[in-house]
Amino acid sequence: MNPQQYAVKNSVKFLAELKHYLKFRSISAQSKHKKDLLMCAEFIADHCKQIGLFVKLHKTSGNPIVIAKTFNKRSAGVPHFIIYGHYDVQPVEPVSLWKSDPFEAIVKGDNLIARGSSDNKGQHFAHIKAIESYIKTGTSLPCDITFLLEGEEEVGSESLSIFLREHKKELACDAVVISDSSMPVVGVPALTYSLRGIAAFEIIVRGPDRDLHSGSFGGAIENPAMSLSKILANIRDENGRIRIPGFYDGVKKLSSFERKELARTASTPEDFRKFTGAPDLFGEKGFAHYEQTTARPTFEINGLTSGYQGEGSKTIIPSWAKAKITMRLVGKQNPQKIFDDTKKYIENLAQSSVSVEIIPGHLAEPYEISLKNRLVSPIIEVLTSVFNKKPCILREGGSIPVVNDFKKILGVESLLIGLGLPTDNAHSPNEQLNLKNFKKGIELGIELWKALAKK
Amino acid sequence: MNPQQYAVKNSVKFLAELKHYLKFRSISAQSKHKKDLLMCAEFIADHCKQIGLFVKLHKTSGNPIVIAKTFNKRSAGVPHFIIYGHYDVQPVEPVSLWKSDPFEAIVKGDNLIARGSSDNKGQHFAHIKAIESYIKTGTSLPCDITFLLEGEEEVGSESLSIFLREHKKELACDAVVISDSSMPVVGVPALTYSLRGIAAFEIIVRGPDRDLHSGSFGGAIENPAMSLSKILANIRDENGRIRIPGFYDGVKKLSSFERKELARTASTPEDFRKFTGAPDLFGEKGFAHYEQTTARPTFEINGLTSGYQGEGSKTIIPSWAKAKITMRLVGKQNPQKIFDDTKKYIENLAQSSVSVEIIPGHLAEPYEISLKNRLVSPIIEVLTSVFNKKPCILREGGSIPVVNDFKKILGVESLLIGLGLPTDNAHSPNEQLNLKNFKKGIELGIELWKALAKK
Repeated sequence: MNPQQYAVKNSVKFLAELKHYLKFRSISAQSKHKKDLLMCAEFIADHCKQIGLFVKLHKTSGNPIVIAKTFNKRSAGVPHFIIYGHYDVQPVEPVSLWKSDPFEAIVKGDNLIARGSSDNKGQHFAHIKAIESYIKTGTSLPCDITFLLEGEEEVGSESLSIFLREHKKELACDAVVISDSSMPVVGVPALTYSLRGIAAFEIIVRGPDRDLHSGSFGGAIENPAMSLSKILANIRDENGRIRIPGFYDGVKKLSSFERKELARTASTPEDFRKFTGAPDLFGEKGFAHYEQTTARPTFEINGLTSGYQGEGSKTIIPSWAKAKITMRLVGKQNPQKIFDDTKKYIENLAQSSVSVEIIPGHLAEPYEISLKNRLVSPIIEVLTSVFNKKPCILREGGSIPVVNDFKKILGVESLLIGLGLPTDNAHSPNEQLNLKNFKKGIELGIELWKALAKK
Repeated sequence: MNPQQYAVKNSVKFLAELKHYLKFRSISAQSKHKKDLLMCAEFIADHCKQIGLFVKLHKTSGNPIVIAKTFNKRSAGVPHFIIYGHYDVQPVEPVSLWKSDPFEAIVKGDNLIARGSSDNKGQHFAHIKAIESYIKTGTSLPCDITFLLEGEEEVGSESLSIFLREHKKELACDAVVISDSSMPVVGVPALTYSLRGIAAFEIIVRGPDRDLHSGSFGGAIENPAMSLSKILANIRDENGRIRIPGFYDGVKKLSSFERKELARTASTPEDFRKFTGAPDLFGEKGFAHYEQTTARPTFEINGLTSGYQGEGSKTIIPSWAKAKITMRLVGKQNPQKIFDDTKKYIENLAQSSVSVEIIPGHLAEPYEISLKNRLVSPIIEVLTSVFNKKPCILREGGSIPVVNDFKKILGVESLLIGLGLPTDNAHSPNEQLNLKNFKKGIELGIELWKALAKK
């Protein structure tokens, strides 16, 4: 039996195992789930051991990092690749919008529905199953492979960069393979060559030292929620451009090849709008929606909190108001500089009648791999042969902060071959993974190493 | 024993009874407390019966209305006064800021701390104890008195206006006495001759039909929290003036007597600021803080809700954003017109990339009693004699919506003699009632009827 035959034969078992993996409430943003993250790491470490990998679970100051290798000692004369994945997931709020339990995966049509099914448990699990197919059929791999699975991707991967520095030698490799992005539609493979960076922070506007009666005090005391609204409204102009001075420094114009490639694979504006359910599109003037979401920086409010949020009314001036912000960055935008400039800009907007605090969050640089990189053409070849279709060369609007660490610390590029879909509801209620993609992902995960090891 | 002696002798009992009354979680804004409101109404109805009043608890489509009369049949040749109060209270959120249980009243120094202690259980309970002092000493009252206690004051008194219409004949009276406002400081009595009106509503801005991944969609889909911020920021200009066309129609300029009287009794701007803990004052340009809070209209955000509010970050474009609003109104501003104009103004501000819904809340007209009213001078006389101090003639920034109903339906004015203090934390955590004011309130409640019945 060859690896592909093994994979076909074991597809039911693979799905059951993935469902088990999806049971863990490994939400890294919420500290009450710390133990769930540990249990999830232990589960996947144990699973990798059972399929024949050499496994070590590394404790960190955050969540554990699982290392699972196809070798005990590096084999002579073959390349070494890392497969990166993350077992942590996004929060599930608002829970009421889930049509099924986020942590009890169910199959509906072609999709497996659960938090983490697409982002990212399902995607890296396909690679684990591909390697299992080699090991269990006694087929020798043309290269050494190390799985690196972390539990802090959704909160900035802080422990991972420390870990990479500490294990630089052991992790020396030719490249990192990551399936944590999307294909444009089912059956059309994609190589993602660009990711946006990110700068996360919170704005807290404080006024009176407690909520005040809006009758007795309203009119003479600034309302922190109004003050925050004024700050936020001031960030962006009517054309969707961000007003922070110097913000667009380092933003790269797309080449005509890039524009064409993006346009070729993009959904129509109306299909894109329909999928979101928004009444109309809105974005920076002069750019198409597929450029706005991949090649332009953004300022997003992820959450607002102030005053009374319950039923009915409560006539108060709230003591404080808070906004959670993430900015997506592109090209050569420097996240630290963008954060510093934004902080200064916001502090300058603040009125004397309130105090404004900016609390920094995680930062990640934008990423781009040159299309001339020696591993790009074998990846395109293998994608073409497995999917029987010319792959798309994609820009992704999301961020995978670790790719910068792989480049800076290990000195290697990341090959981003996503198995997700734009319709997977990643970060949203009812997250799903297309099971055809999962199956194709295992097939790809088997063929991949032959192509990459050749080079 | 005369009524005043009875009140002094029973002060410990009175306090214990008030503490019991404060145990009920009669929060009218939250439907889960519906039963607490009923139990609270039954308690105070029963209490009034025990002290010798003729009591009826009226069911309504909302919370019950308690009627407690000193008479079974109206006495011939004496006036009839209503004493109005409300047994419902404001929500207690944020609960963590309370230094003691909001529903277990404790005495600290001169203050009794509990939700509803000042607004309004403590204040109308003083009047109940004054009337008990007449009844229990067999002292005849110079007038007939009806207590009217409702449970929807904090949410717009909807049932009460229906009730007044249905019981118009039975409730025909000379005037309504209300203690639901403040004195400027302990020991300085006040007659409040003006209340602000109110218009409450919610703004909901909706974008995508679910939270979206801010990486995949950010840049091409409007963020409803940003859209809401832009709307809110647009309401008020840099000078603190509200931009809604026609908004200031009907706002009256104060007479120089009114200005002087306000200035005479107002705290200094610095004392006012200090009490709130705000870094600086902010209000409509050209007006002093005591005018801004009593003679000028406002637009207050009482609460903001959007997206992810938990720990850490969640990289989403929220599906919707919501603001709870109350506007305070003055002079001849018409709440319905103000609401309609505001709705139109906000709908015009809305971008096509979102949908905006305005959900109306309760409305109340501003109120003012002429200082030439025949009952004003006896009130001033009795306040002067009980407190041994010239009373202040006050404007109040808050709203007591029912005064308009008393005027329109029963055709009578309301005499507002507050026993609260600006420092009582009404609507805030750690609400308190000054016990000296409670005691003086009972004393006043005994003397009052002699003065009013003379006219």
